[in-house]
Amino acid sequence: MGSLRVVVEGVGAAPFGKHLHRSLRDLAEEAAVEALKDAGVTADDVDAVFFSNSVAGIVTGQEAIRGQTALRGTGLLGKPVFNVENACASGSSAFLLARNGILAGTWQTVLVVGAEKMFHEDRIVPYRALASAADLSDLPEEAASGASPVFMELYAERTRGYMERTGATAADFAEVVVKARAHAAGNPIAQYRGQVTADEVLTSGDVVPPLTKFMCSPISDGAAAVVLSSAKAAEPGPIVQVEVLASQLVTGNPLHDGDPAGYVAEAARRAYEEAGVGPGEVDVVELHDAAAPAELEYSEALGLCGPGEGPSLLRQGATRLGGRVPINTGGGLIARGHPMGATGVAQIREIALQLRGDAGERQVQGARIGLVQNAGGSVGGASAASAVHILARRSRSR
Amino acid sequence: MGSLRVVVEGVGAAPFGKHLHRSLRDLAEEAAVEALKDAGVTADDVDAVFFSNSVAGIVTGQEAIRGQTALRGTGLLGKPVFNVENACASGSSAFLLARNGILAGTWQTVLVVGAEKMFHEDRIVPYRALASAADLSDLPEEAASGASPVFMELYAERTRGYMERTGATAADFAEVVVKARAHAAGNPIAQYRGQVTADEVLTSGDVVPPLTKFMCSPISDGAAAVVLSSAKAAEPGPIVQVEVLASQLVTGNPLHDGDPAGYVAEAARRAYEEAGVGPGEVDVVELHDAAAPAELEYSEALGLCGPGEGPSLLRQGATRLGGRVPINTGGGLIARGHPMGATGVAQIREIALQLRGDAGERQVQGARIGLVQNAGGSVGGASAASAVHILARRSRSR
Repeated sequence: MGSLRVVVEGVGAAPFGKHLHRSLRDLAEEAAVEALKDAGVTADDVDAVFFSNSVAGIVTGQEAIRGQTALRGTGLLGKPVFNVENACASGSSAFLLARNGILAGTWQTVLVVGAEKMFHEDRIVPYRALASAADLSDLPEEAASGASPVFMELYAERTRGYMERTGATAADFAEVVVKARAHAAGNPIAQYRGQVTADEVLTSGDVVPPLTKFMCSPISDGAAAVVLSSAKAAEPGPIVQVEVLASQLVTGNPLHDGDPAGYVAEAARRAYEEAGVGPGEVDVVELHDAAAPAELEYSEALGLCGPGEGPSLLRQGATRLGGRVPINTGGGLIARGHPMGATGVAQIREIALQLRGDAGERQVQGARIGLVQNAGGSVGGASAASAVHILARRSRSR
Repeated sequence: MGSLRVVVEGVGAAPFGKHLHRSLRDLAEEAAVEALKDAGVTADDVDAVFFSNSVAGIVTGQEAIRGQTALRGTGLLGKPVFNVENACASGSSAFLLARNGILAGTWQTVLVVGAEKMFHEDRIVPYRALASAADLSDLPEEAASGASPVFMELYAERTRGYMERTGATAADFAEVVVKARAHAAGNPIAQYRGQVTADEVLTSGDVVPPLTKFMCSPISDGAAAVVLSSAKAAEPGPIVQVEVLASQLVTGNPLHDGDPAGYVAEAARRAYEEAGVGPGEVDVVELHDAAAPAELEYSEALGLCGPGEGPSLLRQGATRLGGRVPINTGGGLIARGHPMGATGVAQIREIALQLRGDAGERQVQGARIGLVQNAGGSVGGASAASAVHILARRSRSR
């Protein structure tokens, strides 16, 4: 097992945005077909398919066999298809399980598709879907009915604590959004590609203070896909390979109670250990900025800076393109958009593009190690799923 | 990898039946706690959890993070939890992925819980849930609305073809039910433990001719759980171990069109190949009798008899307790019940009990090789997920 390596062989996506007239199937197919083409394989070469989606039962009414339904036109019937759900970390969960199947020797080539439709003609539907990512028994009644942006209440409460501990300000959070939008301007699949000023962010409308509308990830439709292969199956492949060094997922734990981002730190600790790399070696990061303050808090939890140093890391410019460790070069959840089950896969796609050197105008020069952090859901006040993956660029000699 | 073995270390269940006043959480907890106890491990020993459920989004309203929600009281928070869905084959899918994680070396001990609530105070809800196991775009409008037992329409059509090909009669299907009920009488978790006569089955009320009510699997609530371990982690364990020799899953394929049960035959072919055993070596079988005729059709697809010999295999008594290859000793879906996401796990539990020699009055004497067949969903007229697992009794020397 020690010598078996898993590589990201191809990536694809359907644009993130508001697509009232495109179906889940339509979006999923576009991403899957692009990833297969990018990997240089056909549906026949695929040994298994993982489909990541969180709330289609609510949004489209297709509760069961979502992947088979969405991908029935892609020539993939006949292959095993597994439907995986873990709220906003569904994509990371599917990715981890796909990698396991290759490490187990069960499969050589696996397609992971994350797809989500959230927009609906009935405007309450997306909020009902989001509310389902928390244990319903935990929710105040109005939240369970979908009437309030429940997760932003939770984020706002955390944010106020973070501000007290670190001196972070609303201006810092606005700067996170300005940066995310600037990065997204170079990302063809991003939902918001227009640049904004800090003042526009601060006056974009209150959600729950201190969070404004532009500081919160939007409702989104979209899809992303990656093809994973064993390095052996990948031959003769490209000279540059993107290897998966680590893939870890935990749920929240009462042990983390003293540290609001402890579930992220724990997943990161395990991932660094599995990968055999340290936070100082990471060149580019995709992290789960469901709301802007999370970028600062998670920068600390991932060890990209010391405790309490999230705001100064941002203010120094270290996390923008051209800085020491650019964060969310694809725009993050805030600007790329956040179709729940697609997000984790889109994050991996972004890091794979960066490590291949295929990220175009948003390329991080010389990126060799990339990290993905993705989290989803809330149960008993703790994270339902917290994932960290570490990927590396490998140059193969001919 | 060649020497890494996966064993079923413990099993548990909550009784199948109509439990309007028990929650999904309540049922899942009972099964999980019993499986951990049976395995002689605690929640602390568990490295990962798979939760199999198909339709809780429709029945309970908890669309996302179903496993975290259902198992939050079991001390398992902190562990990775993965929610897996594949209609009536959700349990088999979770089992396969759990085994992969052990073969990959990612985990040593994994808990698989399958749980489903189908009964609801609104009596249309279970039918709406079942309808979701087919591609909604395939369904006639009344079926999509949940007003008709859509799957039984499909089964009845297949059954008429099977009768033409093999000479099977309604009396044969009634005999399958009589046998299933007799087996279930010895299974404390079964939904229907009262014995019936062939005449009672034939006059139990038409569903879709030739299927009568007793020939169809019922609406059920219930849960089942298994603990899987690497054989190394299992030491020092019991002298008798239940090893997983093969776990295979496919989706239906146009290539199978000429053979209505081709998707079962294909999964079986792959499983026999992986296990290195042939159908003649199988001592006990759990198969997916969503309707009684499937037992005869799948007996053929699994190679337990020759083509067209399903009816004679039954008539000879080979498939009842005491026969050559007893089928559905736990009662099958017809008599044990069929809580969709729990079924695959309950089938594995039954075979594990048989191979351990712990099946009580329904014990198959000397059983050494057991087979599980589980299928779920329909997409484009083909099976959405078709699984076969092969397990074996191993006696370890001290």
